[in-house]
Amino acid sequence: MNILIKEEVNQRLAKLQQIIIQSEADACIISTPVNQFYLLNFIFDGYIFVRSEGKPLLFVKRPNGVEGENVIYIRKPEQIPDFLRQRNISLPKKLMLENDVLSFSTVTRLQTALKMPELMNISSEMRRIRSVKSEYELNQMRECAKIHAKVYEQIPHIYRKEMTDIEFQIELERTMRLAGSEGVFRAFGENMDIFMGSVLAGDNAQSASPFDFALGGQGSSPLLPIGANGTKLTEGTTVMVDMAGNYRPWMSDITRAFAIGVVPEVAYKAHQVSIDICNTIVATTKAGTPCADIYFLAEEMVRKNNLADYFMGTEQQAKFVGHGVGLEINEPPVLAPRSKDILQIGMAIAVEPKFVLPGIGGVGIENTYIVMDNGLEKITICAEELLVL
Amino acid sequence: MNILIKEEVNQRLAKLQQIIIQSEADACIISTPVNQFYLLNFIFDGYIFVRSEGKPLLFVKRPNGVEGENVIYIRKPEQIPDFLRQRNISLPKKLMLENDVLSFSTVTRLQTALKMPELMNISSEMRRIRSVKSEYELNQMRECAKIHAKVYEQIPHIYRKEMTDIEFQIELERTMRLAGSEGVFRAFGENMDIFMGSVLAGDNAQSASPFDFALGGQGSSPLLPIGANGTKLTEGTTVMVDMAGNYRPWMSDITRAFAIGVVPEVAYKAHQVSIDICNTIVATTKAGTPCADIYFLAEEMVRKNNLADYFMGTEQQAKFVGHGVGLEINEPPVLAPRSKDILQIGMAIAVEPKFVLPGIGGVGIENTYIVMDNGLEKITICAEELLVL
Repeated sequence: MNILIKEEVNQRLAKLQQIIIQSEADACIISTPVNQFYLLNFIFDGYIFVRSEGKPLLFVKRPNGVEGENVIYIRKPEQIPDFLRQRNISLPKKLMLENDVLSFSTVTRLQTALKMPELMNISSEMRRIRSVKSEYELNQMRECAKIHAKVYEQIPHIYRKEMTDIEFQIELERTMRLAGSEGVFRAFGENMDIFMGSVLAGDNAQSASPFDFALGGQGSSPLLPIGANGTKLTEGTTVMVDMAGNYRPWMSDITRAFAIGVVPEVAYKAHQVSIDICNTIVATTKAGTPCADIYFLAEEMVRKNNLADYFMGTEQQAKFVGHGVGLEINEPPVLAPRSKDILQIGMAIAVEPKFVLPGIGGVGIENTYIVMDNGLEKITICAEELLVL
Repeated sequence: MNILIKEEVNQRLAKLQQIIIQSEADACIISTPVNQFYLLNFIFDGYIFVRSEGKPLLFVKRPNGVEGENVIYIRKPEQIPDFLRQRNISLPKKLMLENDVLSFSTVTRLQTALKMPELMNISSEMRRIRSVKSEYELNQMRECAKIHAKVYEQIPHIYRKEMTDIEFQIELERTMRLAGSEGVFRAFGENMDIFMGSVLAGDNAQSASPFDFALGGQGSSPLLPIGANGTKLTEGTTVMVDMAGNYRPWMSDITRAFAIGVVPEVAYKAHQVSIDICNTIVATTKAGTPCADIYFLAEEMVRKNNLADYFMGTEQQAKFVGHGVGLEINEPPVLAPRSKDILQIGMAIAVEPKFVLPGIGGVGIENTYIVMDNGLEKITICAEELLVL
């Protein structure tokens, strides 16, 4: 591990240890991939055992080959107490676990193995820590966004007449993968199933989905009812592309919309309102801005343009206009009316004021911005207008 | 919903209701996608409330548009008790939940919302019910396996000299998607991250991974350390392809290995042992066979051929030779030495005796079989020999 990353993980660990101290907990166990990666720069099957100070212990089930004086190989969590005793570490009485992500069975097994400590939930705090990025992390996002934008620039060349949305998405997936996309992109929560992102053509953009993304789509399988559904890309409609920016562990989020041939004027108008909203947000937002205000600003511009019925969907309208981005695609803060969050320096947010126009399709853009002392830095630089395919 | 599927879901519901009766529980709530799909043939964000008899109630958060007299729209689980009261249904005192999959936070919130019923875990029982397939489900698997096999037949045409494993996998992914793969394939458990399957070239097949698949691979990102890692497909090595068969909700599992040019004789020998193991299993296995016996049979043949050091990995060796397949890629039973499961008519199992040869790569095959009264039906029909690319 190079010195820069070593310094990074030390700082992240220190933030977690601050939380442990403030919560008056005795220890925290981290075992989900995203948080393990955040704390160590690698992941394993097992448990990172963190106390308020000192280096964490790693209880590793697999893979073989993890080395270090703090590494202890175990087969099952029930072995942890013995190893703690050998190191003169008492069993935690108050233990923080990732309760929002670990299964009920996993948590209760761990709790039992550790002789029933009182449980506290570290999930939200870890997400809050991760929401404020270091310069290293922001640079990862800038690099990711550059590749992401380059892939989007290839979209007009990928399009062929008579394609379905799925065929179009498949060629885009290939382009993404060749540009280094990991494929899997990580989201937080139990209703976030999706495959590599969303391509919505024509009226499929109206279809409501069970999942918690900005827009839905019918999908092509009853097991994955979201996204492209086989709609042919048809003259007079739009296609909205919101595919994952997972070219680095820290991600970017971009949406662009395209017109198939000639589309009605209202599509251009609504698309321009989306661009205007983004520009107005950039002009008025900086560290210290309440996230709810960003939503209200967008909502106000939508209303003035008589587009409220089409904002963030039609049949089902998402009640947010953006969200944090990082190791997961949906990090805090949420740009929503009920949010109590205040933007902080180093946060990264995706802003996505979108419209769904019946008979036409989705329009609007999404950019990713870094929150600075004096404004927002746009990191997703590629053509924003409604390009004609 | 057509009559056949209506009949199917009624029979599945009846099996769950049997479990509720046997467990002396008052109700069961199903809210994970795979089990929702199994019970209803569609999924939604919300809760299927099942009692020992009668039609389930659907408490739906989203999407809009789910219709029926048993559908109740809610915003949050805390509203469930009031709606139960309106229908003269008393709150369950003993409640079954999917504790192996739902997060600790979700389960405790539901438990609190329902006034603290005693909890029982339905996860394993649902998996056990699903492990025995109906003729309809088996036909889905047969259809899936046919497409899966056709995709694998294209592998020699996809290969180009000087490709890396990742480039090779990307073209294969595209072929899979064009053949109807859903992309996402579902696995059970907390250590089952992967993207569309596994391509392992040369010595990358030896790399241990944190995840619970048969083989590992280094992967190309520290956030997803599994599978292809950029290894060039090199003369004298092998490449093993174990990509998802998700062309239907009920899946198939196939592995095939390929030689890049001329490979050492031992690769052919070990590959043939894998084929022989599969054939011997087919000749000796039927409903009633203990799953552990299948493992021991394979292990015995491995030992007789002096291949134990290479069986199911080298640095890290998986201690199973196969597993059930269905809506998830890893269903019961597991073909492992400690398994107490007995094969039943209608189970579907993947058998994957694999070898990893240092300096060469992975060899061996994986087929999916349906368990019948008098033997096994192979549903994954495509060339099994070590084909030269």
